[in-house]
Amino acid sequence: MTYRAPVRDLAFTLQAVADMPQLEATGAYPDYDAEVAGAVLEAAGQFSEEVLAPLNRIGDQKGATYANGAVTAAPGFADAYRQFAAGGWTGLAAPAHAGGQGLPKALELAAFETVHAANMAFGLCPMLSQAAIEALEQVGTEAQKAKYLGKLVSGEWTGAMVLTEPGAGSDLGALTATATPNGDGTYALNGQKIFITWGDHDAVDNILHLVLARLPDAPAGPKGISLFLAPKFEVADDGALGDRNSFRPVGVEHKLGIHASPTCVMAYEGARAELVGQPNQGLAHMFVMMNAARLAVGVEGVGIAERAYQQALAYALDRRQGRSVWTGEAGAPIFDHPDVRRMLAVMKAKITAARGICLSTAVAADMARVAADAEDRKRWKAREDLLTPIAKAWSTDVGCEVASLGVQVHGGMGFIEETGAAQHYRDARIAPIYEGTNGIQAMDLVGRKLSMDGGEAARAVIAEMKDTLAQLPRLYAGKPVERFAAAIEAVEDATLWLLDRKADPDAVADVLAAADAYLKLMGDVIGGWMVAKGALAAKARLDAGDGDPAWLQGKLDLYEIYAANVLGHVSSRLAAVGQGGEVLQRMSVDALAG
Amino acid sequence: MTYRAPVRDLAFTLQAVADMPQLEATGAYPDYDAEVAGAVLEAAGQFSEEVLAPLNRIGDQKGATYANGAVTAAPGFADAYRQFAAGGWTGLAAPAHAGGQGLPKALELAAFETVHAANMAFGLCPMLSQAAIEALEQVGTEAQKAKYLGKLVSGEWTGAMVLTEPGAGSDLGALTATATPNGDGTYALNGQKIFITWGDHDAVDNILHLVLARLPDAPAGPKGISLFLAPKFEVADDGALGDRNSFRPVGVEHKLGIHASPTCVMAYEGARAELVGQPNQGLAHMFVMMNAARLAVGVEGVGIAERAYQQALAYALDRRQGRSVWTGEAGAPIFDHPDVRRMLAVMKAKITAARGICLSTAVAADMARVAADAEDRKRWKAREDLLTPIAKAWSTDVGCEVASLGVQVHGGMGFIEETGAAQHYRDARIAPIYEGTNGIQAMDLVGRKLSMDGGEAARAVIAEMKDTLAQLPRLYAGKPVERFAAAIEAVEDATLWLLDRKADPDAVADVLAAADAYLKLMGDVIGGWMVAKGALAAKARLDAGDGDPAWLQGKLDLYEIYAANVLGHVSSRLAAVGQGGEVLQRMSVDALAG
Repeated sequence: MTYRAPVRDLAFTLQAVADMPQLEATGAYPDYDAEVAGAVLEAAGQFSEEVLAPLNRIGDQKGATYANGAVTAAPGFADAYRQFAAGGWTGLAAPAHAGGQGLPKALELAAFETVHAANMAFGLCPMLSQAAIEALEQVGTEAQKAKYLGKLVSGEWTGAMVLTEPGAGSDLGALTATATPNGDGTYALNGQKIFITWGDHDAVDNILHLVLARLPDAPAGPKGISLFLAPKFEVADDGALGDRNSFRPVGVEHKLGIHASPTCVMAYEGARAELVGQPNQGLAHMFVMMNAARLAVGVEGVGIAERAYQQALAYALDRRQGRSVWTGEAGAPIFDHPDVRRMLAVMKAKITAARGICLSTAVAADMARVAADAEDRKRWKAREDLLTPIAKAWSTDVGCEVASLGVQVHGGMGFIEETGAAQHYRDARIAPIYEGTNGIQAMDLVGRKLSMDGGEAARAVIAEMKDTLAQLPRLYAGKPVERFAAAIEAVEDATLWLLDRKADPDAVADVLAAADAYLKLMGDVIGGWMVAKGALAAKARLDAGDGDPAWLQGKLDLYEIYAANVLGHVSSRLAAVGQGGEVLQRMSVDALAG
Repeated sequence: MTYRAPVRDLAFTLQAVADMPQLEATGAYPDYDAEVAGAVLEAAGQFSEEVLAPLNRIGDQKGATYANGAVTAAPGFADAYRQFAAGGWTGLAAPAHAGGQGLPKALELAAFETVHAANMAFGLCPMLSQAAIEALEQVGTEAQKAKYLGKLVSGEWTGAMVLTEPGAGSDLGALTATATPNGDGTYALNGQKIFITWGDHDAVDNILHLVLARLPDAPAGPKGISLFLAPKFEVADDGALGDRNSFRPVGVEHKLGIHASPTCVMAYEGARAELVGQPNQGLAHMFVMMNAARLAVGVEGVGIAERAYQQALAYALDRRQGRSVWTGEAGAPIFDHPDVRRMLAVMKAKITAARGICLSTAVAADMARVAADAEDRKRWKAREDLLTPIAKAWSTDVGCEVASLGVQVHGGMGFIEETGAAQHYRDARIAPIYEGTNGIQAMDLVGRKLSMDGGEAARAVIAEMKDTLAQLPRLYAGKPVERFAAAIEAVEDATLWLLDRKADPDAVADVLAAADAYLKLMGDVIGGWMVAKGALAAKARLDAGDGDPAWLQGKLDLYEIYAANVLGHVSSRLAAVGQGGEVLQRMSVDALAG
C-alpha cells in the first residue's frame, strides 16, 4: 500500500478543529452526522487507496497523450474515472435536486483530500466538474440547469474552465477570444486558449466548456468579458448527443508534473455556445466560484503533502543507517536520528495546520450558505473570504515544502524517479501557481479581503485565537504559550499597520510589498491556532479516556513542534511586512544586474 | 543568450567580500592579482556561456545513456568536455608540478560557479576529477602522482569517487566491498557500488576510480576501510594504456534532474587496484578532501540559483500583465509588480549571501595552506572547517529556494518544461542531498566543527561580524542595523547554548535536534554579514566614484532587502535550536500515524 487515507485525522479535524458540530446544529444537513462523515471518509479513502493510488506512477510515466486532435487519458485513468463517477463521488456536496447528495462542502473536501493525495492529476478532473456545477448552479438558467447539471453531478460528463490565453493569464482583462451572435440565441466562439485542464479526454461522452470571451461591442478590459457554455457535443433538449462542436485540442503541454492531467491548448473556431449569466459579467460570475476552486487547490496542497509524508515516514522506518541516540541500537532505522524525526514531525505539524485551515474555511463556506441568521451568514461569508487566499496559498506552499522534505528524508534515493518521492515534489509545484498564483492570493488578501468591513473579519479571527490562547495554559507552560501569544500580537500589529497603510492612497506599493509576508504570517499563526485547537480537543479526549492515547498525545506534542519550528517565524514575517515599497522600486534592472 | 556569467559580481565578491587582497598579500600566488582574476573569470564565463549553456537543455532531454556495459555522454557533452580540458580549466588551482596553473582555489571556485550555472550536470565531471587530484596530491605516493596526476590535471582522463553501496550511504562504515591482495602489490576489488557520478562515459580514454573497500582482515566498521585506485584501463609505467580493468557500469539511474550526469551502478569483479595512502585509513583520507568537495557543491547551489534568477529576471522584464503601481503603465512588465520585484530582489540577495559565504570559505581554505605563520594557518583551517558545512548546506538550500522562486516568477509558464525554469528546479534538488546530506552537514557543524578549540572559530566569526556591525551606521539607520545586531546576538546565544549542551553527555539528542536550525541560523547571519560587507565596499567605491553607480547602489539596497526578508528569521531559528530532543523522542510511530 503506497498510500493510506488518514481517515482518523480527517474525521478528527472536521469534528474537533473545523467544528462541524456547529454546522450540524444548523439542521441544514439532516443527512449529516459524525457517523456519516466517518463512513464517507472511509469509503472515499478506500477508493483512493485501491483504485487511484496504484495509477499514480503510470500516470506520471505515460501521461495523457495527444494525437490527431484528441486527447487520450493516461493508461487506466478513463476506467478509474468511470468507477469514480459510478460511485457518486463528484456529487457528494452537489444539490439533491441535481442528483447530488447534498452533504456539506467541508466533508466533500475532506474526502477529496484523499483523491488528490492518491492521484493529484486525476483529482483535477472531478474538481473542474465541481467548479462547472457551481457556476451553473449560481448563474445558469433553469433550462441550462435542467440540461447540463445532472450529467455533471453524476459524472457522466465532465466540465472544463476555459479562461487563460497566451496574453491573458493573471490579467484576464486582457483576453481577446470573441463570441459573435449566431442570430438564434447562440454564439460563435473564436480564439485560442491555453492551460485548459482536462480540456479534452476520452473518459466521458461529453465535456462542457465554460469559456470566457468578448461580445462584439463589449467594453475593453475586465468589464467586457462574458461567460459561455460550449459542449463538446451538442445536446438536444431530450439530452441526446448531436454534432461535434467546432473546438478541439491542438496539443497538450509537456509539464514538470501532474503528467496524467491533460493541459490542453484549445482552438475555438466558430464553436457554438450559450451565454451563461449576464453579458459582460463573466469575470464576476467566475469570481463567484473562485473561492471554492481556490480552496480545492489548497486541499490539493494538503493531499500531496500527506502523500509525501507517508512515503517518507515509511522509508525512515525501513532504511537503516548508523546508531540510534535513543536506543543505542546499531543499524537503527533513520527514524531514530533526531534530525530525521524532526523533519517528519515538522511535516506532520504543517499538514495538520494546513488541513485545519482548509477544512475550517470549508465550514465557513457552508455556514455562509446555511446559517439561519442573515447576520451570521454575512459573518461566515467574511470568514470564508478572508481565509480562502490563505488556505490556497499557505497550504500549497506547505505541499511543496513537505514534498521537498520528503525527498530529503530519502537521501540519494529521493532523487531517483523510481522511488516516487520526486514525483510528489514535481506534482506539488503546480499548486502555488494555478487558480491564481500565490502572489495573486496575497494581493487579494491585502487588497480586498483584509479591509472588508474595515478589517472586521480579521479582528474576529484574532479574538477567537485569543480565546484559544487563554486555554493553552491547561496544556503547556512557558514557551509554547508565549509563542502563540507573540504570534497573535504579530498578526495584530501587521493587520493594524496594513489597514493604516491602505488608508493612504500613496502607499499602494507598501501594501503590495507586504502582501506575501502578511499572507504567510496569517498562515503560520492561523495554522498554529488549528494545531492548538487539535491539542485542546485531544487533551479532552485523553482525559475522557476516549481514543488511542499515543495518537492523542501526539496531537499535544505536535503543537510543541509547531510552536518551536513554525510560530517562531512570525518576527521575520513582520519584518518583511514592513519593508515598504521604496527599496523595491529602487531595485532597477541595473541594480539587479550581475 | 540564456546565461550570462556574472563576472562583475564574482570579481567584486572575491575582492571586496571574500578579501582576496589578504591572500594576495601572502605572496604565495605570484601569478595572481585582481587583473588576472578578472581575465580568468571573463574567459571561464565566456566558455560557460558559449559552449556549456547551450547544451544544458539537450542534456536534460536526452541525458547520458547506458547500453551494453558502457555509458555514452549526452549529445555534445564529450566534445564540450574535450574543449574544456584543452582550455586547461580542470587544473586552474592544481599544483604547477602536475601541470596545473597553481591559482588560488577561491578563484577556481568563482570560475566554476559559471560552469555549474551554465550546465550543472557537466560541471560534476571536472569537479570529481578535482577531488581525485586532491586525494592523490594529499596521500598518493610519488609514483602514483607521477603516473596519474598529470593526466587528471590536464583533463585527458577523469576521476570518479566510489564510496556508496546500497547498504552504506550516510553510514560509510557499513560498506562491504572487498580488496584482496593479488600477491604482486596490487589488489582485487569486488563489490557493487551505487551513485557513482560520471563513473563511466565516452569523453575520455581513461577514468580513474578511487574506491573505498575493506582489506581481508580489516576491523569492522569505519576503521576497516581503505582507499584504492582502479583505472578503467591499466596504465603502464610509460603511461601507455593497457588492458581494460574488470569493473563496469551495469546501469545508470533515472533521476529527477542532472540527467546529463551519468549516475552509475558499478560492478567490480576482481578489478585490479592499488592502495592509496595507508591501510584502514580510507575514510580519514576521504575526509581530507571532503571539505573541498563539499564547498564545490555549495558553489553548485550558487550557480544554479544564479541561472534560475537570470531566467526569471529576463521573463519578468518581457512578460506583460496588469498595470504598474510605479509608472501607471498598462500592460506593464511584471517586473513592475512589487511582489514580483520582491521575489527577484530576495533571489539576488540570497545569491549574494551564498556566493560570499562560499568564496570566503575558499579564501580561508587557501589561507590555511599558504599563510606564512603556523598559528595563522591553524586559525584559517578552523575557519574553513567551521564554514564548510554552512557553505554546503545553506547555499544548496538557497539553490532550491531560488530555483523554486524562479518557477513562481514564470507563473504557469514555469511549470512547462520547454521554458527551462523547471529544469533548474529539478537539477538544484540534488545538491542538498549529495556529498553528505544537509542534515549530515548540520550534524558535522554542531557535532565537530563548533566545538573545535572550545568554540574559538565561531567566536572569531562573531567578533568579526561585530566589527562589520560597527561600520553599518555609516550606511543605514534603524532597522537594517538593529536587525544585524539582533542576528549576531542570536548566534551568540545559540552558540553558547549548544556549547553548554555539548558538555552534558546526556544531551546528545538535544544537540542533534538543534543541528539543522543552528546551521540555518549561522547561514542566515553569516550570509547577512557577507551582504553587509558588500554594501560597505560598494559605498566606498561609490564615494570614490569608482564603478557603475546604479549597480553599486544596488549592493546597498540588497542589504536592506536581506535584512528585512532573511535576517528576521533568526528568532525562529533560535526557537528551533532550543526545542530539545525530548519532544522528538516522544513522537513515536503511533503519535505520527494518521
